[in-house]
Amino acid sequence: MKQIITFGEVLMRLSPEGNKKFMQANLLEFYFGGTEINVGISIANFGEKVKHISCVSNDFVGDTAISYIQKFGVSTSAIVRSDRPLGVYFLEVGAVMRPSSISYNRAHSSFADIRPEMVDWETILRKAKWIHWTGITPALGKGGYDTLKAGLLLAKEKGIQVSTDPTYRKGLWKYGENAKDVLTDLISLSTIFIGGVNEINEVLGTNYSYSNDDFIEASKQLMKRFPNIEKVFDKIRTSINASWHKIRARMWNGKEFRETTDFDITHIIDRIGTGDAFAAGLIYGLQSFDDCKAMEFASAACALKHTYEGDVNYATVDEVMAILNGDVSGRVNR
Amino acid sequence: MKQIITFGEVLMRLSPEGNKKFMQANLLEFYFGGTEINVGISIANFGEKVKHISCVSNDFVGDTAISYIQKFGVSTSAIVRSDRPLGVYFLEVGAVMRPSSISYNRAHSSFADIRPEMVDWETILRKAKWIHWTGITPALGKGGYDTLKAGLLLAKEKGIQVSTDPTYRKGLWKYGENAKDVLTDLISLSTIFIGGVNEINEVLGTNYSYSNDDFIEASKQLMKRFPNIEKVFDKIRTSINASWHKIRARMWNGKEFRETTDFDITHIIDRIGTGDAFAAGLIYGLQSFDDCKAMEFASAACALKHTYEGDVNYATVDEVMAILNGDVSGRVNR
Amino acid sequence: MKQIITFGEVLMRLSPEGNKKFMQANLLEFYFGGTEINVGISIANFGEKVKHISCVSNDFVGDTAISYIQKFGVSTSAIVRSDRPLGVYFLEVGAVMRPSSISYNRAHSSFADIRPEMVDWETILRKAKWIHWTGITPALGKGGYDTLKAGLLLAKEKGIQVSTDPTYRKGLWKYGENAKDVLTDLISLSTIFIGGVNEINEVLGTNYSYSNDDFIEASKQLMKRFPNIEKVFDKIRTSINASWHKIRARMWNGKEFRETTDFDITHIIDRIGTGDAFAAGLIYGLQSFDDCKAMEFASAACALKHTYEGDVNYATVDEVMAILNGDVSGRVNR
Amino acid sequence: MKQIITFGEVLMRLSPEGNKKFMQANLLEFYFGGTEINVGISIANFGEKVKHISCVSNDFVGDTAISYIQKFGVSTSAIVRSDRPLGVYFLEVGAVMRPSSISYNRAHSSFADIRPEMVDWETILRKAKWIHWTGITPALGKGGYDTLKAGLLLAKEKGIQVSTDPTYRKGLWKYGENAKDVLTDLISLSTIFIGGVNEINEVLGTNYSYSNDDFIEASKQLMKRFPNIEKVFDKIRTSINASWHKIRARMWNGKEFRETTDFDITHIIDRIGTGDAFAAGLIYGLQSFDDCKAMEFASAACALKHTYEGDVNYATVDEVMAILNGDVSGRVNR
Amino acid sequence: MKQIITFGEVLMRLSPEGNKKFMQANLLEFYFGGTEINVGISIANFGEKVKHISCVSNDFVGDTAISYIQKFGVSTSAIVRSDRPLGVYFLEVGAVMRPSSISYNRAHSSFADIRPEMVDWETILRKAKWIHWTGITPALGKGGYDTLKAGLLLAKEKGIQVSTDPTYRKGLWKYGENAKDVLTDLISLSTIFIGGVNEINEVLGTNYSYSNDDFIEASKQLMKRFPNIEKVFDKIRTSINASWHKIRARMWNGKEFRETTDFDITHIIDRIGTGDAFAAGLIYGLQSFDDCKAMEFASAACALKHTYEGDVNYATVDEVMAILNGDVSGRVNR
Amino acid sequence: MKQIITFGEVLMRLSPEGNKKFMQANLLEFYFGGTEINVGISIANFGEKVKHISCVSNDFVGDTAISYIQKFGVSTSAIVRSDRPLGVYFLEVGAVMRPSSISYNRAHSSFADIRPEMVDWETILRKAKWIHWTGITPALGKGGYDTLKAGLLLAKEKGIQVSTDPTYRKGLWKYGENAKDVLTDLISLSTIFIGGVNEINEVLGTNYSYSNDDFIEASKQLMKRFPNIEKVFDKIRTSINASWHKIRARMWNGKEFRETTDFDITHIIDRIGTGDAFAAGLIYGLQSFDDCKAMEFASAACALKHTYEGDVNYATVDEVMAILNGDVSGRVNR
Repeated sequence: MKQIITFGEVLMRLSPEGNKKFMQANLLEFYFGGTEINVGISIANFGEKVKHISCVSNDFVGDTAISYIQKFGVSTSAIVRSDRPLGVYFLEVGAVMRPSSISYNRAHSSFADIRPEMVDWETILRKAKWIHWTGITPALGKGGYDTLKAGLLLAKEKGIQVSTDPTYRKGLWKYGENAKDVLTDLISLSTIFIGGVNEINEVLGTNYSYSNDDFIEASKQLMKRFPNIEKVFDKIRTSINASWHKIRARMWNGKEFRETTDFDITHIIDRIGTGDAFAAGLIYGLQSFDDCKAMEFASAACALKHTYEGDVNYATVDEVMAILNGDVSGRVNR
Repeated sequence: MKQIITFGEVLMRLSPEGNKKFMQANLLEFYFGGTEINVGISIANFGEKVKHISCVSNDFVGDTAISYIQKFGVSTSAIVRSDRPLGVYFLEVGAVMRPSSISYNRAHSSFADIRPEMVDWETILRKAKWIHWTGITPALGKGGYDTLKAGLLLAKEKGIQVSTDPTYRKGLWKYGENAKDVLTDLISLSTIFIGGVNEINEVLGTNYSYSNDDFIEASKQLMKRFPNIEKVFDKIRTSINASWHKIRARMWNGKEFRETTDFDITHIIDRIGTGDAFAAGLIYGLQSFDDCKAMEFASAACALKHTYEGDVNYATVDEVMAILNGDVSGRVNR
Repeated sequence: MKQIITFGEVLMRLSPEGNKKFMQANLLEFYFGGTEINVGISIANFGEKVKHISCVSNDFVGDTAISYIQKFGVSTSAIVRSDRPLGVYFLEVGAVMRPSSISYNRAHSSFADIRPEMVDWETILRKAKWIHWTGITPALGKGGYDTLKAGLLLAKEKGIQVSTDPTYRKGLWKYGENAKDVLTDLISLSTIFIGGVNEINEVLGTNYSYSNDDFIEASKQLMKRFPNIEKVFDKIRTSINASWHKIRARMWNGKEFRETTDFDITHIIDRIGTGDAFAAGLIYGLQSFDDCKAMEFASAACALKHTYEGDVNYATVDEVMAILNGDVSGRVNR
Repeated sequence: MKQIITFGEVLMRLSPEGNKKFMQANLLEFYFGGTEINVGISIANFGEKVKHISCVSNDFVGDTAISYIQKFGVSTSAIVRSDRPLGVYFLEVGAVMRPSSISYNRAHSSFADIRPEMVDWETILRKAKWIHWTGITPALGKGGYDTLKAGLLLAKEKGIQVSTDPTYRKGLWKYGENAKDVLTDLISLSTIFIGGVNEINEVLGTNYSYSNDDFIEASKQLMKRFPNIEKVFDKIRTSINASWHKIRARMWNGKEFRETTDFDITHIIDRIGTGDAFAAGLIYGLQSFDDCKAMEFASAACALKHTYEGDVNYATVDEVMAILNGDVSGRVNR
Repeated sequence: MKQIITFGEVLMRLSPEGNKKFMQANLLEFYFGGTEINVGISIANFGEKVKHISCVSNDFVGDTAISYIQKFGVSTSAIVRSDRPLGVYFLEVGAVMRPSSISYNRAHSSFADIRPEMVDWETILRKAKWIHWTGITPALGKGGYDTLKAGLLLAKEKGIQVSTDPTYRKGLWKYGENAKDVLTDLISLSTIFIGGVNEINEVLGTNYSYSNDDFIEASKQLMKRFPNIEKVFDKIRTSINASWHKIRARMWNGKEFRETTDFDITHIIDRIGTGDAFAAGLIYGLQSFDDCKAMEFASAACALKHTYEGDVNYATVDEVMAILNGDVSGRVNR
Repeated sequence: MKQIITFGEVLMRLSPEGNKKFMQANLLEFYFGGTEINVGISIANFGEKVKHISCVSNDFVGDTAISYIQKFGVSTSAIVRSDRPLGVYFLEVGAVMRPSSISYNRAHSSFADIRPEMVDWETILRKAKWIHWTGITPALGKGGYDTLKAGLLLAKEKGIQVSTDPTYRKGLWKYGENAKDVLTDLISLSTIFIGGVNEINEVLGTNYSYSNDDFIEASKQLMKRFPNIEKVFDKIRTSINASWHKIRARMWNGKEFRETTDFDITHIIDRIGTGDAFAAGLIYGLQSFDDCKAMEFASAACALKHTYEGDVNYATVDEVMAILNGDVSGRVNR
């Protein structure tokens, strides 16, 4: 079986239990996450072979991160080490009208130390069928950008699928490069676009609204600008409050527009990583189903992820299919 | 005060805290439960004298199970010991559209070691006024079936009330006996039937629907086939998802049909043992109230159980009555 | 910056984690609280200078209480010590239709030992701009009543604002004084009345209903009887069940009646101290905004408090303002 | 089987986990204990039938205390309830040279509410063979003293064995009675004295040293003053520090002096209740063995108790006998 | 790098935190272990490639076991699944003179379901350089015995090293085969004997004492009977009590006798799996050092294992070497 | 009362509970520490007024750090904020022969952002009587060095006592300055030297041994080189292993040499911060006692600190004096 490649920072997530604030706690739960490894682990849980590429700290924290990834059967053999510390993020989980808060400690992390010569793309891509990247990686520093670009260029050459979730976060992008230029550069090497009107507006400098019509038009413009992009998938979240969301999806694949109905997530357990579960669902789905069913699979996977603590989507294909087939009753499996 | 007798397996329940999966945990909460002991403990919490009969392991796990039961004032003096291990079940608690999952380790447990000669029914029933059994016990093995039948025969002779919750679970029943035959045999020794159209269809081989009309007709046919059955009580659960249910009940007592309105359980804490709380509520209620109020008491007890972690219904009679009388506001008691 | 003074008992709160009952637990979470210190800490979290006056036990429990208050930057320099134990309350947190239960151990606590000569009001009020009291303090004993009265008399002399939340709890008031007389005495020294029709009826011996018309009329009568009272603020809670409330507020300031819309608190984390958050919001708001916006600030603060575990409202002014400005989506702050 | 009766206050013990101080914790472990119930539970764990007499709070804390005692099979049918709160003690566990600290909240507890008319000694002692009391009970208040004395007088009349651990704690004894007079009164109704030179000096007003010679002489004087006393047992603790003790015992039974060798307790888990384990060991041992072996059994029980968290000695007779027979290697039992 | 193969049952270990008894707990820590997988994981932590062969349950418990093993980089690709439950063991950890207690639930576990046809020895041993087995496996049932024997026969054919820790546990061996016969059969296929006088006496039917002279003589007799055995390694444990041990080792390699000095383990954290750490140390050491240094490495590894909670030895080669080189001061590594 | 000033980085400490490794944990305990704030808090616990100067992150982690310091009554009014993250250190606590391991994430922390203009030394030192610094601060970066030097120059001018613990850690000092030069610069502004032969050798470039004679000679040379240094205090740790240390101290005050006997710390709870407790003990002691008693007080404080979890020494003056006066029995305080 050929591998799916994910590339990006592995972060340690630290948060008090439940909805406690740091000031109330003296214990923190920890997980490892990061948008690309979240995607990788979710795909591995769907039964695919996955290899993650990153640079982690050369200490017991980095050892633990690697061990955490291995637990899910994701290959860590291409992860390199640095003397810098692993990136950390602190999370206070909100509830009802109280938002969650995140504070990052990643500016000088081990991942920012990565350099193209550390990653043997030739060997890695020889056994690969898909590579996934997000807009976080090139935002973190030149090393990540250069390393990623080297991989995408080779992937293009080899005809490997490239999906991107070009999430744009203004708070990052501090190392000198211009976000729009860099994203343009990398999107032009990609084939599947996982993002919505916001991301398209950012890259094209347009001003489309959230309406379906505008989404279709925006997607068309995107594909005109980037003819390599074959399909656009968008996940729509309606937040009643921090504890109760609705999720649906829509797509434009160059030929037809489709959208799903809402999943009603009345009691959210953890919303971190739900976008990553959507991306993972698409990557799995597009290899197994037609575009529309892939989108439905992805949105069901995204909905299910809200029920797991931590960044990881533990759902298996069977579990997603059950939801997709309409069983949301949550009846006990004995 | 005469005793109420419950008879059945005591299981150790092991589950990660909150909604964690086993793969996320390194700690498991444990409780002891099992459908019949759950009924017994709930009735004891209503102030009745209860004796539970079982066979538990002859090690510190069995000691702990006995200690757990004693905590609620349920008599353990008729519990016997075996060198086999106590049955265990593992539980992952779902949320929203994610179902809970249960995995059992009970096939060769201490309870499967029980034999009729280990239980002195004559002495036990001398001080008893009621005996309750469920379809789980005869499904687990010949020893449990034979031991139970010996008790029911003597109970019939002494005119003791016999209630049954004949839950049919296809996954069990592996020791050679036929479920329908065995259940028919035991139901013919019982007086109160706690179950619905599903269970009746199973036993009679009929095909009634969930409608009230079919429920009444099914109950009539059941009573025709088993003239000893005096009353039929059915609990109806509407699952919006794993975190939000509605509960109501209906009955046919040979003379009249009655049903309750729904309890809206918007934030479920633990749904295991809620059917047992219904049975316990009925057993208590039928001794204290008319049939209709007994049913209302049982459904209020069942609704309240959804708010307690673990298998046990901690509600007292006063607490159930408050709900029954319409106070569902949950205002603080100071 | 002049200080806001709060005066009252500091209690240790002990409760099992989550919704567990004491019988299920072997660990208890503890916090320190009490209606007046809750108000004080919340105001300190809004950035004001606050001094709390109390009498706590002269042991490591009292040390811990003082340390807990210092954590929030509230001055503890006027807290005195007694050889009696700190008051304690035990809490079982309910869910859905199950009410929370509280059991107090405060009848002979260190606070009941307070005497007027222990508090140097002259020095304390020299740097004060506001003093807040509640009906709990004079209910607990003569020492608290006398000490409070001494402070209020001096506050009146100095023209310091005096707010009161005259909560009437029948279960207290065991030391011989009559609640109505004592409250009348103290309300006549106060300027801001935080309470509703219930409290007015209790003090005036009237029988007004909950309607807005009656609230206005009751407030007018209150101001007629106590011309020192300038404004009346009332918080209205609608309990769907123990896990789901709606909160709104209304006011009569002698000139106009205003009311807010409801905040929908669909997943309550902890409702203890939400009334105190309302009072704190008002005390902060009345110094910063007009009466109507102060009321809106207070009700947003009250709503937010339902999302924090423990008695304390951790919300900052910015966080309350965000809610007040309509952002209840709980979107993650990165 | 006749019962052994213990009589005394049931306290809730609250302490941070491990060696944490209150200032470091936000969770407290809780147990129920008290010197006499500790003795009772330990004897029940040796297989005897035990009934404990006390007065506990009429709330969920009192319910939990009763449930805790039932867990060990100790009868709670003679425990009465009061509207006052259950006594509480707070414990910080020391280590090495840091002493443990205890702070009590028991002065106005439910137990101080007990009155002779609440205890039906006639019925209770009809099925009793032994009654045990300690010096804590009469120190707590007149109600406990009077109730105890009524029981001891009837026990003497019925020829029931009466053991006493007359622990003298200066900090108690605040209700007006003189410790020496009261203890003299009650010791004159007892037959087994569990205490050493300190306690004898306190009661007789003498000044004996810790030497074996003085212990023998003191015991002789005690028996001369109280001819009803048949035997004196003394436990000697050598504290290297808070984490490492040595334990041995000595006795004078009117005929011979005997002493044991030291048990070396190199890693103490919990030293609360170890004196109670000694008393329980004696009460069991004196019914099963000769005086010397009873003393050895008691000191082995006392040593073992240092290895259990909480007040309770979980050791069974077999486990104590193994230690007594010299196996202190702690090899794993499979 | 060629692989080291371990073969045996994977058990779930469940124990209360610290030194609590089951009766005191409501939480259990869980780990996965079993003598052979413990050896495998420890060797993987030394940097070798390891593959473990077993049969685990086909449920989320089995999934978690596999995930746990993958965490350490041990290959799980040859682990098969069964519908039977995973074996479980319950552990109460003793202290000082209190022994730990273990209770097993493994008689009908998934591992007992293994059959020779489930294991593709040919493929597995093609990449293997060493195989390790213990006396537990053939004691559990015919399936394990047959499967193991098939592997050892092939290993012999291929000239692969075979080490054995022939631990004899009387409590097992219930399926009809005779322990001595079976062990004789399997030892005759092995090359390295990790065991002492006890095990030799068991297999040869001799009666040697623990003296060094007898150990040498016993080893010679063993090698005479089993000429395939090249070396005998024996670990000697001196138990001061359950919290304090001393460890040393001795060997006879057919040519010379050597022994180490004692490691003084003054504060044991967890002694389960320390024998497995010794075996793992030997397997690693014999490939890297001479026999004597291998023995020293193994005894240092064994000593270090006493400082890790759970069954697993986390020590790396560098960490063992530091101890081996005499640094037992435990100075902080920064 | 004049204040004692401490200046240095505040770090978040994260470690698994007990002796777990990161790979075994999913929860981390957190504390705030750092050598200088540890000294400050310990002195505050002795009853002195203390102000700590630092630069912490401008997020909820920084808020929590400030709140943590306020808990102990240490003034935080001179702590400034930076957009960089707070420094973090990860700790795995060893046992017996297993060393603890620490990994730092502080190279680009908020403290490294401090600049002289952020600290108003003039105002701060107006109310100060003592300032304490350590060799960690100037090692972390130029900003800390410059800011510290500005303070020490002013302190010298004002005749304020300056104590230093010039701990030299080779792993730090990466920003370009030479350790020896910088330390020389700062020591020449200090009056009390808390360090031993190692530190003197580092600063003087000498090579003295640990003998008392060499210590005296080294101290003399130090004072010759730095005539401002009045006294030298040295703490000597003997590590039996990671769980068992012995502590003593020695001094040369220009006139006499004195040394204490060993404290035997048989069961270490936490050794982090014990050197800081020694420094705090000296700073308190030198203001209250003669030099020799100050040294004894400091070594008793240091010994006691080994019994508290976390970085903080919770000991009060009374508690240290009890140890100093020879009571190391750890008898329970009731």
